Amino acid sequence: MTAPSDAPLFGGIEGGGTKFVCVIGRGPGDMVAEARIPTTTPQATLSETVEFFRTESARAGTLAAIGVGCFGPVDLHEDSPTWGYITTTPKPGWERTDVAGRLRRDLGVPVAFDTDVNAAALGEARWGAARGLDSFVYLTVGTGIGGGGLLGGRPMHGLVHPEMGHMLLPRDRAADPFPGMCPFHGDCLEGLASGPALLARWGQPAEGLHEDHPAWPLEAHYLALAVVNFVCTLSPQRIILGGGVMDQRHLFPLIRREVVALLNGYLRASEILDGIDAYIVPPGLGNRSGRLGAIAMAEQLVRA
Amino acid sequence: MTAPSDAPLFGGIEGGGTKFVCVIGRGPGDMVAEARIPTTTPQATLSETVEFFRTESARAGTLAAIGVGCFGPVDLHEDSPTWGYITTTPKPGWERTDVAGRLRRDLGVPVAFDTDVNAAALGEARWGAARGLDSFVYLTVGTGIGGGGLLGGRPMHGLVHPEMGHMLLPRDRAADPFPGMCPFHGDCLEGLASGPALLARWGQPAEGLHEDHPAWPLEAHYLALAVVNFVCTLSPQRIILGGGVMDQRHLFPLIRREVVALLNGYLRASEILDGIDAYIVPPGLGNRSGRLGAIAMAEQLVRA
Repeated sequence: MTAPSDAPLFGGIEGGGTKFVCVIGRGPGDMVAEARIPTTTPQATLSETVEFFRTESARAGTLAAIGVGCFGPVDLHEDSPTWGYITTTPKPGWERTDVAGRLRRDLGVPVAFDTDVNAAALGEARWGAARGLDSFVYLTVGTGIGGGGLLGGRPMHGLVHPEMGHMLLPRDRAADPFPGMCPFHGDCLEGLASGPALLARWGQPAEGLHEDHPAWPLEAHYLALAVVNFVCTLSPQRIILGGGVMDQRHLFPLIRREVVALLNGYLRASEILDGIDAYIVPPGLGNRSGRLGAIAMAEQLVRA
Repeated sequence: MTAPSDAPLFGGIEGGGTKFVCVIGRGPGDMVAEARIPTTTPQATLSETVEFFRTESARAGTLAAIGVGCFGPVDLHEDSPTWGYITTTPKPGWERTDVAGRLRRDLGVPVAFDTDVNAAALGEARWGAARGLDSFVYLTVGTGIGGGGLLGGRPMHGLVHPEMGHMLLPRDRAADPFPGMCPFHGDCLEGLASGPALLARWGQPAEGLHEDHPAWPLEAHYLALAVVNFVCTLSPQRIILGGGVMDQRHLFPLIRREVVALLNGYLRASEILDGIDAYIVPPGLGNRSGRLGAIAMAEQLVRA
């Protein structure tokens, strides 16, 4: 048992479409409570969330702030009347849900709010594979495909926030006739390479496909095209690929090889030419990037 | 004639592969000298450049700083021994040329250094079509295709700097069998849609192709795909399209229409859904974005 710390204690929420993972702690080695709350209705899920933080902070100590990385689309404009809301989500019942405001009111603590992916990216920047970098991309490849990260030391916000999964890519319909399954764009990156796209194309989920299955070179091809476009557009110092599909670690060498081939020597950066293994990497925090990133957001809010 | 001003006077250089445009002034309405120096050898071009600033500042007044927007690739890492150099350019004789250091030594003034496109973007942010924005993309479509801009108020730097012209795009080879002409990637954005690509595909330069020519819907299609990928990746508040090819103003409505169609309602931002005419725009400074941006860089260096 560690001695009680005087360092401030933070709350973190990884708010996903299936569950809200709620944590209390100070960092990867100092977490004091955790709960998984199913994402049902906003009323039920947010009440349970508030209850968790009330009960656990009564036991563990006062929270200095709470960070929330939330599924979306969300409103991140600080001067908007709907800042901290989930806005136009297709998830039934969750459209126009005030998440950050509700927590702030009910719990009486400052709340930091960002997308789930930006939170995970921040976790990687604070304690994971992006420590010391001020420009990197974190792409999650799972049920959907989403991206975030830092540019010039700041989280990527903008008009709305990045929707990297909806990037449009070259494709050879003769080699891959699968039409894609994004309801908006058909064969955008997410429509071609998400977990559900793998399942629809091959009839089996990622974890059911053997390493030698032709699914993998094709999956690596699409992800490599996306990585090349990130490199050309954002010039990140590193690209972290996470999410359920990337648990298939044999994808990494395939992607790295194809990125180098596609760039074809154009960018003479030694990080890419000589260090591709350290340039395209899995998350340093495994599947805890999101919840730890939420803690990091809370910490940053208090320090700001 | 305006009265002599007490405001500091700046030098600006738009360093291109064909000519160095050198200017002295304080902004769009207050320019006091300009020269065009052919880009021949580094020795000759930089000597003439130094000579221009010596002669003209003796007449007009001491320069507080000089800004340089330079063709590249260039080294922008401030702690690099080759900061301010042109690095691996294919332009004969210019590889590993110290531009910023030479000017600083010979002229004894602080020198700000960035890519030609980031300089133009900064000019648009200071006095042009991006005033008041902190996240926007400036894409120039001409001899090559390059992009820059601000994200979160800061110029886009990173591992190297963006090479947006080399983005990979979907294409229908049946509809457009042109193989592209990028020596590195064949049919990347630049390989498909630059001025030289238009000339190679259609046998005529942009200015020789009538508004009704099939070249234009195809050109607009590729540029719209690129815009969509910028929107998904960077979420900019505005996209400025400049460069010689975009002098064909009839491209703008074609591009705007196709961007809205490609996004297909996914991003519910009123700036895009209701205000696309103000979202995808020509440069506010016409063909002076680069040189005025260089002045803005010098101004920023002194204020910093």
